[in-house]
Amino acid sequence: MNGAHAVARTLLNSGVEVCFANPGTSELHFVAALDDEPALRAVPCLFEGVATGAADGYGRMTGRPAAALLHLGPGLSNGLANLHNARRAGTPVVNLVGDHATFHKKYDAPLESDVDALARTVSGWVRRCDDAVGVGTDVAEAVAAATGAPGRVATVLLPADVSWSDGARPAPPVAARPPTAVPEQTVAAVVAALRTGEPAALLLGGAATREPALSIAGRIAAATGARLLCETFPARLERGAGLPAVERLGYLAEGAMAQLGGVQHLVLVGARAPVSFFAHPTLPGLLAPDSCRIHTLATTADDIPAALSDLADTVAADAAAVLQAAVRPPLPTGALTAETAAAVVGALLPDGTIVVDEANTSGLWLPGATAGAPRHDWLTLTGGAIGQGLPLAAGAALACPDRPVLCLEADGSAMYTISALWTHAREGLDITTVIFANGSYAILDMESRRLGMPADGSAHHDLLDLTRPGLDFVALARGMGVPASRATTAENFTARLRQAFAEPGPHLVEAVVPALF
Amino acid sequence: MNGAHAVARTLLNSGVEVCFANPGTSELHFVAALDDEPALRAVPCLFEGVATGAADGYGRMTGRPAAALLHLGPGLSNGLANLHNARRAGTPVVNLVGDHATFHKKYDAPLESDVDALARTVSGWVRRCDDAVGVGTDVAEAVAAATGAPGRVATVLLPADVSWSDGARPAPPVAARPPTAVPEQTVAAVVAALRTGEPAALLLGGAATREPALSIAGRIAAATGARLLCETFPARLERGAGLPAVERLGYLAEGAMAQLGGVQHLVLVGARAPVSFFAHPTLPGLLAPDSCRIHTLATTADDIPAALSDLADTVAADAAAVLQAAVRPPLPTGALTAETAAAVVGALLPDGTIVVDEANTSGLWLPGATAGAPRHDWLTLTGGAIGQGLPLAAGAALACPDRPVLCLEADGSAMYTISALWTHAREGLDITTVIFANGSYAILDMESRRLGMPADGSAHHDLLDLTRPGLDFVALARGMGVPASRATTAENFTARLRQAFAEPGPHLVEAVVPALF
Repeated sequence: MNGAHAVARTLLNSGVEVCFANPGTSELHFVAALDDEPALRAVPCLFEGVATGAADGYGRMTGRPAAALLHLGPGLSNGLANLHNARRAGTPVVNLVGDHATFHKKYDAPLESDVDALARTVSGWVRRCDDAVGVGTDVAEAVAAATGAPGRVATVLLPADVSWSDGARPAPPVAARPPTAVPEQTVAAVVAALRTGEPAALLLGGAATREPALSIAGRIAAATGARLLCETFPARLERGAGLPAVERLGYLAEGAMAQLGGVQHLVLVGARAPVSFFAHPTLPGLLAPDSCRIHTLATTADDIPAALSDLADTVAADAAAVLQAAVRPPLPTGALTAETAAAVVGALLPDGTIVVDEANTSGLWLPGATAGAPRHDWLTLTGGAIGQGLPLAAGAALACPDRPVLCLEADGSAMYTISALWTHAREGLDITTVIFANGSYAILDMESRRLGMPADGSAHHDLLDLTRPGLDFVALARGMGVPASRATTAENFTARLRQAFAEPGPHLVEAVVPALF
Repeated sequence: MNGAHAVARTLLNSGVEVCFANPGTSELHFVAALDDEPALRAVPCLFEGVATGAADGYGRMTGRPAAALLHLGPGLSNGLANLHNARRAGTPVVNLVGDHATFHKKYDAPLESDVDALARTVSGWVRRCDDAVGVGTDVAEAVAAATGAPGRVATVLLPADVSWSDGARPAPPVAARPPTAVPEQTVAAVVAALRTGEPAALLLGGAATREPALSIAGRIAAATGARLLCETFPARLERGAGLPAVERLGYLAEGAMAQLGGVQHLVLVGARAPVSFFAHPTLPGLLAPDSCRIHTLATTADDIPAALSDLADTVAADAAAVLQAAVRPPLPTGALTAETAAAVVGALLPDGTIVVDEANTSGLWLPGATAGAPRHDWLTLTGGAIGQGLPLAAGAALACPDRPVLCLEADGSAMYTISALWTHAREGLDITTVIFANGSYAILDMESRRLGMPADGSAHHDLLDLTRPGLDFVALARGMGVPASRATTAENFTARLRQAFAEPGPHLVEAVVPALF
């Protein structure tokens, strides 16, 4: 058996079932191996950032890694931005990066680059395979490294001759590191903090924004009066009617500082102490009040549900969480704006939807409008590298074929990885994409004003304006095989979204909205 | 004056006139500075790979760097693939990468990553700016580092607080390192080799594929009988009627080995000893025959025209170069294929065109069909990182507004950076893009067969096929404001191409051709 076949078989042995792929010549033996392993589903992507973003979406929804097949340093480079988001999300991902044959690297052929250095910038684990004999073990260890708590990006650098050489054998699964048990005294310290009676909040992240941890946190909040907050950009927040409502920290420092004002005890549960997304000349980087004491109950490496359960046993033995009521906004009429569009989404969101949110400024009203919608998952831009939404939606849809996916996408961000729409069509994924077409990088307009700079210069307008010419997302989507339409009023946005939700397969609705800034 | 203003003014002082930009919040002070420096043209790009590829095209045509404005590690990541190509081309490029404020990096905010490591993978020079006082000098030195022989990627990491802090001042230009003079004895050794009477060839690269070096090399070839070869993927090859004809080394090892067969003396002039693009299990990596002696007349760091001139003074004092005759293929009729499409291009190519060639397998007949066309430049995929063509064309068109640009682009490669079309439209660039739509990654089909692997498996088909659904490039181009049409016969390809050449501004023609493999 050659190395490539051993890699494919080992991935299957270890529970990897999907490979998002953008192969080149150095990966062709692996492509041939996939021909013999139909259980390992090969999903073509027209750009590596689609493959890595899809692997992130898949991993967030399953807790298991997909593989991303990439072509040497340049292929990995194109995938790095969405791997950065995956790293920030703590998503398990296994990169297979084909490389020149071991004996060829010394020639510095045109595609040669420092792929090892590139891999280290996003990976929690990197392995360069030396020979076919060891490649099965390399891959099994990669899957374990990716999967254990916390999830991480694991990158296997796979030279072409390792793939084509014989003498390889598949490896059995390697046990992933289990989450760490949180010591009793750590829980006891949090108990003491919550029993002071001083204002407290739990800041949830990682597994704490999902069940079963979320409901336990809700009980603790109900019993102690602590508020339930979560990080600004959670990897996957379960929310909606019947779940405890969690307040996300705001994106702007001044907003988050207001939310945290008066909190005397901030208990971190899979989250880190909140910091400003960007520095601002006159605002602090650390957002909790100076007087606030920060307690870490559990990191993402820890057993978060168990730690919360231990805490609840002491402080919330008989408490019931306060649950979000089922409530939807009425369907709006008239002008389509970010606000009325959010109301339509809230009014129509199907039960069990996976929402991918890269709506940026146009998404301001979305959390409020959907808070009482039927239970759903909310996936956000964890690392700030835009161009995540369309790929993430592809991976989430492949991970959960029985659930609808709603991708809420800003026009500027959509263009980074627009070719993901082709993968939506190719795989027949049940994804409804809404493009919030406000014709600008509006967030930069907002940040300019916030920084006290004039937003009326010609370079400013040239670089932030997307209307000369306008982007026609209906044409772009149809050009990649995705049925598409445009909405310019609340009424026709309602009609288009209803239709998209009712029909299986991918759809795109361009929602023309004014920029907020 | 704040740091951002000093950066902009220093760029202008140093001769940088264009900034291809994809800014974010950390670059907003620089955007504001651009408002005050209208001579520094800000060109918006919807994806960083467009900005860096455009900077490569601009630098190849002018010999001077453009700036590429990128947003932290993820923005640089998205630009890396085309920076890899620029590095291989020896193109001067100055990256301005905004970063978190110096005092904010310790917080590991969501966009934080190892941007320094990323920068080093593609840059010949990297500088992290420490303060506003020094930033002018940093930028002047970056321009000099980029511009000197050989050209390179220079990256400036520009923290937000350096941009917004006062106390900065623009720096005067810094002298770039001049090309190195080639010693007499080096020239003498090549003279001796060429005088053996044994079969010889000059292998041209870097400045040797352009005037004035090219004509001097032609005289040497005529006088000595040495053949004129050039590297497989030259950064910029001047060619056409009235110039010495140069034979490009083939992409496949077996082809290049055949071209080099029998050569006893290979004289490198701005090129390196030829190596196989990829390793192959049964072919050597070094392509010159074992018996061939390799002589380096000049590297890309050397004064190539002077070295050739010195050589010509001895071996070709009175010789005239053999020049390519003016000859065009007849306009074909009937089926549109890669071969007939090439004939149409050869028949119609306007005088002085800049040809950007990322046609891959569909481009097989292009060099032959255009060899005797009016004089033109041919820009190729130097580093093998596909997705270069559309951005490179944008940069070349901005560099040379009085020359037509023809971008010959494969469908698969086009999708990596398709949003470059929007920049074509935004800037009104006179670029005719031909998409060779063969509906597959045909080069991988070819390589699979060459590697002796079956090309009939389902994963193979799933990953190499671009027809389910088909990509409609007419819709995609129109969606970004570029007039577009489709050609399916030689006759209507002729008509479409004629029209595109006749009208100013961007056009796209989708040429539907069968895959070669």
